[in-house]
Amino acid sequence: MRITALAGGIGGARFLRGLRHHVQQATSDPVSGETAGTGLTEITVIGNTGDDIWIHGLRVCPDLDTVMYTLGDGIDPERGWGRLDETFRAKEELTAYGVEPTWFGLGDRDIGTHLVRTTSLNAGYPLSSVTEALCERWQPGVRLIPMTDDRAETHVIVDDPDNPGTDIALHFQEWWIRYRASLPARRFVVVGIEEAKPAPGVVDALRNADVIVFPPSNPIVSISTILAVPGIADEIRATRAPVVGVSPIISGAPVRGMADACLRASGIETSAAAVAAHYGARSSGGLLDGWLVDTSDAASTPVIEQAGITTRAVPLLMTDLDATAAMAAETLGLASRLRSTP
Amino acid sequence: MRITALAGGIGGARFLRGLRHHVQQATSDPVSGETAGTGLTEITVIGNTGDDIWIHGLRVCPDLDTVMYTLGDGIDPERGWGRLDETFRAKEELTAYGVEPTWFGLGDRDIGTHLVRTTSLNAGYPLSSVTEALCERWQPGVRLIPMTDDRAETHVIVDDPDNPGTDIALHFQEWWIRYRASLPARRFVVVGIEEAKPAPGVVDALRNADVIVFPPSNPIVSISTILAVPGIADEIRATRAPVVGVSPIISGAPVRGMADACLRASGIETSAAAVAAHYGARSSGGLLDGWLVDTSDAASTPVIEQAGITTRAVPLLMTDLDATAAMAAETLGLASRLRSTP
Repeated sequence: MRITALAGGIGGARFLRGLRHHVQQATSDPVSGETAGTGLTEITVIGNTGDDIWIHGLRVCPDLDTVMYTLGDGIDPERGWGRLDETFRAKEELTAYGVEPTWFGLGDRDIGTHLVRTTSLNAGYPLSSVTEALCERWQPGVRLIPMTDDRAETHVIVDDPDNPGTDIALHFQEWWIRYRASLPARRFVVVGIEEAKPAPGVVDALRNADVIVFPPSNPIVSISTILAVPGIADEIRATRAPVVGVSPIISGAPVRGMADACLRASGIETSAAAVAAHYGARSSGGLLDGWLVDTSDAASTPVIEQAGITTRAVPLLMTDLDATAAMAAETLGLASRLRSTP
Repeated sequence: MRITALAGGIGGARFLRGLRHHVQQATSDPVSGETAGTGLTEITVIGNTGDDIWIHGLRVCPDLDTVMYTLGDGIDPERGWGRLDETFRAKEELTAYGVEPTWFGLGDRDIGTHLVRTTSLNAGYPLSSVTEALCERWQPGVRLIPMTDDRAETHVIVDDPDNPGTDIALHFQEWWIRYRASLPARRFVVVGIEEAKPAPGVVDALRNADVIVFPPSNPIVSISTILAVPGIADEIRATRAPVVGVSPIISGAPVRGMADACLRASGIETSAAAVAAHYGARSSGGLLDGWLVDTSDAASTPVIEQAGITTRAVPLLMTDLDATAAMAAETLGLASRLRSTP
């Protein structure tokens, strides 16, 4: 079986760890029911690169690294981003020199990754090749592909905090980290996205998938940024595979992160149903066949189903690996039912 | 009084710390005998950049940094290079990724400096401006100028260890650090030196100096590399200031480092007298007016004097700051005598 998942950072990475665990545990193919063997299930992850940023001359890809470190057991499990047992000595020096920006959490171990990436990119290798090379060390157990090899960075239009009444565009990272998403966002602009091409392997991974999964990543700045790469949404609309999403919103709030601030800027209510409606049903030109909401949101199931999206209410808190693997099992189970009853 | 010193790394930096200490302690101008006041003596250091190297996309200037960190109290005093209380976590990551080179000691705090330098150079600032900006933090108490803003890196021609009988050129750092100068050097080639121009301020610092000092730096790969920048040796030959050097060789051996391997490659005996002869007397078209040898080398004094270089035998071991300040006092004292009796 071939599973293709879109993914942002922390939420997506944690879900993918559960998915990988479930797939490795399963003794039979979760979709076809065939007896599983080693390597029977392939997981391809299309990672968001809209959050990428040049910081002090280093190319940083926060979402790709969060997926890579999480699946490679190199992540700081408390923070959810960056390396386990991390230090920030180089960053302290940068601050001592008085160079900006000072708000980005550039860890010393993390810098090793950024140096390898930056020198490889500057030598002319595309991000997809560089990511593949980095993953040789981490052995994430999935194929991780950036959504695009082209530069396409999310910016946030806000009221200039230093000059009220004037719009300014901040890099997403500055808005997210420096301002903790507290400056009301007017809208998001992914600079360069119109010219971006899907990275090599992305289109094939969507066309040849047996199931496409939207993990509980930020629906605006992670999943919708990936979907904004010309060609990707069209492939998802056209694929024969079922497309199943997992709500990142539980009981009207994001489980983690500040997705509500992103939804607000996009005029979308912070609810499992509103996010499903944002993606839309494939039967009406949207992107989803199935949708998982948390049991606490079971009441919203009829509304979402009415829009043409098969919905199940199951526990969606990724409290530990087993709970997350159970969510992944529900995701694949729903996909299996959608395949057998199209 | 204006003192201009050429300098390499560890030996030069330690001498300069003693020189600065002596000058700050002195109640009267060490050369003119005038009563000293705040800021009466200016020290300008022309730093060797032949050891500079691009490592993992970072521009590293080992000698400039050693001078800056040593005079700015940021150096590791045991190692003599790199930052106090240093860690090497990014370097460990680079090794884990399997990227070369692995032999260069890239410390985490040090990386902060290299990131500032690299981004500034890539933004178009010349190395001299970047060095000045870095020194604003370190306040070394001297004006530190790179010998040139141009790229001119020392390479070592050796027998290829993997392919005997074939010459290869190694970057000086690779020969020095990776091979601990153990591969017999045939010769040194400073790639780019013919086209290099003295950095802004270098020529003025030589023309307007009251005394020019050659600290006990490596005579081949530090001092002679600076002297190889077109124009610098000519200015020293022509200046009215006395030029006094301090032998880096004591009792036929370098006090520290592997200067003997460099001297051997250049066909120069490892002795205080041979190094003096290498520089030559200004009275016969060379560069030195005065030369300090260690008391253990007092027997060589007549030979050096015969060549036209006024020589004094004094203790030259930089065992502590006071001993080093005393060496600096002897250096300036000799310069003073050379000025009064030209």
